Amino acid sequence: MPAIPALARCRRLLACLPFLFLAACASQAPLRGSGGLGVVIERADGQVQIVDHLARRSLASVAGLGDLSHASVVFSRDGRYAYVFGRDGGLSKVDLLQARVERRIVQAGNSIGGAISQDGRLVVAQNYEPGGIKAFDAETLELLADVPADYGDGQRSKVVGLADLSGNRFAYALFDAGEIRITDLSDPKQPRTQRFSAGKQPYDALVTPDGRYYIAGLFGEDGLALLDTWQPELGTRRILAGYGRGEAPLPVYKMPHLRGWAIAGGRAYLPAIGRHEVLVVDTASWQEVGRIPVKSQPVFVMARPDGRQIWVNFAFPDNGWLQVIDPLTQQVSATLQPGQAILHLEFSAKGEQVWVSARDDNAVLVFDTASQRLLQTLPARSPSGIFFTQRAFRMGF
Amino acid sequence: MPAIPALARCRRLLACLPFLFLAACASQAPLRGSGGLGVVIERADGQVQIVDHLARRSLASVAGLGDLSHASVVFSRDGRYAYVFGRDGGLSKVDLLQARVERRIVQAGNSIGGAISQDGRLVVAQNYEPGGIKAFDAETLELLADVPADYGDGQRSKVVGLADLSGNRFAYALFDAGEIRITDLSDPKQPRTQRFSAGKQPYDALVTPDGRYYIAGLFGEDGLALLDTWQPELGTRRILAGYGRGEAPLPVYKMPHLRGWAIAGGRAYLPAIGRHEVLVVDTASWQEVGRIPVKSQPVFVMARPDGRQIWVNFAFPDNGWLQVIDPLTQQVSATLQPGQAILHLEFSAKGEQVWVSARDDNAVLVFDTASQRLLQTLPARSPSGIFFTQRAFRMGF
Repeated sequence: MPAIPALARCRRLLACLPFLFLAACASQAPLRGSGGLGVVIERADGQVQIVDHLARRSLASVAGLGDLSHASVVFSRDGRYAYVFGRDGGLSKVDLLQARVERRIVQAGNSIGGAISQDGRLVVAQNYEPGGIKAFDAETLELLADVPADYGDGQRSKVVGLADLSGNRFAYALFDAGEIRITDLSDPKQPRTQRFSAGKQPYDALVTPDGRYYIAGLFGEDGLALLDTWQPELGTRRILAGYGRGEAPLPVYKMPHLRGWAIAGGRAYLPAIGRHEVLVVDTASWQEVGRIPVKSQPVFVMARPDGRQIWVNFAFPDNGWLQVIDPLTQQVSATLQPGQAILHLEFSAKGEQVWVSARDDNAVLVFDTASQRLLQTLPARSPSGIFFTQRAFRMGF
Repeated sequence: MPAIPALARCRRLLACLPFLFLAACASQAPLRGSGGLGVVIERADGQVQIVDHLARRSLASVAGLGDLSHASVVFSRDGRYAYVFGRDGGLSKVDLLQARVERRIVQAGNSIGGAISQDGRLVVAQNYEPGGIKAFDAETLELLADVPADYGDGQRSKVVGLADLSGNRFAYALFDAGEIRITDLSDPKQPRTQRFSAGKQPYDALVTPDGRYYIAGLFGEDGLALLDTWQPELGTRRILAGYGRGEAPLPVYKMPHLRGWAIAGGRAYLPAIGRHEVLVVDTASWQEVGRIPVKSQPVFVMARPDGRQIWVNFAFPDNGWLQVIDPLTQQVSATLQPGQAILHLEFSAKGEQVWVSARDDNAVLVFDTASQRLLQTLPARSPSGIFFTQRAFRMGF
């Protein structure tokens, strides 16, 4: 810091003050609203890039976040802090305004992401090892609740598909136990958990954007399990039973992801496992209303926030492609080959832009969604997930 | 400023520096995320209170905003700036982080609110006098487009129900001309406007949260006009024709308001004009599916963001009451009498809190929505509208 040698030469206190004030001033980052901020996971380096997606530029990098393979992020309600969940069980609270790690803990041996409570006070991690969920104080990262995913004869299950619900409840699925559980953390000292049968090997799940319907995809059998979290006493029901998962001998190269972005205009657009199809479900009847043939095995099927387009990326070896579905025609309206290893997409809040990570090009690509025109290319080292702060305002994100 | 007398005593430059640095530091507000900020309109004083709704406290007041009767607010995409539209045609850009007016213009003689474009670059005002819309640069407030609401023989209509659509388009209704118009401002120098018949005296309107369906309420006849903005070539259609507006001899004490908050769980909850009813419409068929009797003439009918509750306030003389509708039973589940002159409500992004303005109690009341328990009372001078920054991320807000 430039003030140091000058301070060393100081003779009179008064002469030193300028440097002290200078240091104090320098420690404050520029004022900015947090609504345009986001993070890009740079997996290979265990760091994140902080971006301003309104100005379409990188602001800073923050390192020391551990193993960020399959990392995911949730945001504090004020949009200032990103909670980064690492595969190694690391949970880091990153200050986006000061571009630094505010706090970091290692909370499990093998973790697969997390969620934040309706009131923003609880950050919850879903863990493979030891199987279960843990709730932390969003301010301090102090452990507030440890809810093991016990089942059968003292076994513990991997947890997937964690989503926040109203009333500081969380829904999640137990891969090994074939269950959906809802844990009420409104009093973190006394978690209350309800259990529901789901089917064989729920591998991921989503909650509808209104926080009502929780849907778990099944790897071990056809179909998905649906739970109305407003009326959990009704139990789960099977939807899309027999859509054909496993019927085709296609190997599954990458498990698809499910999130609230699958819901648009009264329909759910769901990736079929092992098939080159997007399944379309009516969210009033929960009946299948169509299947849309796509280029390969879908991984992310994401509706633009206004639901006017559905973007799809694919598993290896077709992970250089993107397709856009028009919900009016229920057909693919555009096919793009933007780069190598397209791992993730993130839309701006009102959907005019989409940011795309092209891992093997070491680039993040920004597209205008209406024209599918490339607006900008930003350098990034092996980028995977991209997360914008508007997620702080949505359930299930 | 304390530095001044000290500076006057300065002998050597070096001795003055501390005070200069001190002044520089003091000019910067504390760092904070903008996601928890909001403004409360203090109508009688022509000022707004800046609040932190996560901490549930007032941060500052900003005065000099003119006539704020029927004032409304939109936010910049980064959540830092509030654009305050005054009834007197004033448009003020308020910096929420520094609590000051960044820019202010008077753009019309009589204005009734505004909207912000999908990309956040255009702020658009809807005016009664002169009737039309005007688009301004969100950064500088420079006038970019003036689109008069001309009709008939050189007349100009009052404009109501302005809402942002995808592609930097804006939908609005012409009270006097009985039209809905969509103006494409993707090139502000060359606005392109489409015209659609609406019916007699559209008084307000909403766009569904996905930005697709634009619905104008009619004062001059029964029913509402619906336009699919994804397929405007199909034109408008009438919904809820003959729900009874005007059939009952009830005087209309206050016009109801329409916004995207009326849509929840595949249904629209619409205030009936002059009747003690909330009308329920299926958003797939746009057919009426029910009517919910309420205490008085509804003014705001607002779904909690997750759609689990619908809150209703009422026109004079029953404007001290609130009712909560349960969308599962389609019945009133709670009736509250929280204060005097309940003018407006604003929910937190995930709906666990609602802020309520009680004008004649000079108070803002904060309720826990699940229990309807009063959490806090904040002093405010004749509060009317309450607006939180998460509106920046939603279409039609």
